[in-house]
Amino acid sequence: MEPRISLITLGVADLARAKAFYTKLGFSASSVGGAEIVFLQAGPMALCLFPRESLACDVGVPGEGSGFRSIALAHNVREKDEVDAVIAEAAALGATVVKPAHDATWGGRSGYFADPDGHLWEVAWNPHFPLAADGALTIPP
Amino acid sequence: MEPRISLITLGVADLARAKAFYTKLGFSASSVGGAEIVFLQAGPMALCLFPRESLACDVGVPGEGSGFRSIALAHNVREKDEVDAVIAEAAALGATVVKPAHDATWGGRSGYFADPDGHLWEVAWNPHFPLAADGALTIPP
Repeated sequence: MEPRISLITLGVADLARAKAFYTKLGFSASSVGGAEIVFLQAGPMALCLFPRESLACDVGVPGEGSGFRSIALAHNVREKDEVDAVIAEAAALGATVVKPAHDATWGGRSGYFADPDGHLWEVAWNPHFPLAADGALTIPP
Repeated sequence: MEPRISLITLGVADLARAKAFYTKLGFSASSVGGAEIVFLQAGPMALCLFPRESLACDVGVPGEGSGFRSIALAHNVREKDEVDAVIAEAAALGATVVKPAHDATWGGRSGYFADPDGHLWEVAWNPHFPLAADGALTIPP
């Protein structure tokens, strides 16, 4: 298996609401999809929005679930003060601020928001993990 | 917000087991981290393994949760028969085959496995979404 992730699919309760949230946040929706599924370009991968029940059905598992999902996405920014700005932008679009931006013990700045469907996003400035001009993140080997 | 995802953190029950699974699957672990957290390079982003309770604590939410997590990662392959091969490789390393590889109604081939902590991965061959030489996936605009 090549070490890469092509796509992340988020189960959502209201596809139109989720599409509006992510497109206003800066992601571009593809012309492919529509009323049943939404694809958004996310750098060199795709973010997919799919009704929660449809996703469970596609996987072939029951759709019931609750509580902590044990997974979080992260968006790293280039400058420290962008952490606060991105969290504020998401909150203005309907996200819930789960953990306000703060200086982290590991030397960066971080905070978390939950999208309208509860999917967790960390927004982080991490001086140890540089970002390339195209946004690619490289960890030390 | 720039439309990209920098990192995905998976909550895990046993960090050593999760690290062994993903490194054997082809992801390279960073020298940063160790007994508390593992960072793996995943193309132009990072995949992070973190004890589930540590992740909940970092987010600041209760760690309880069960059932469908309403999210799935996907790994797209270049050739149709690679779907079966990657799922078989993951299964041999301890993954659970949730949905065997099959020809999908949308014209590709797909299947799902769950990693040792239940995180869902779709393995897909999608002729509509081309992969670049470096593995980048581009969706139609």
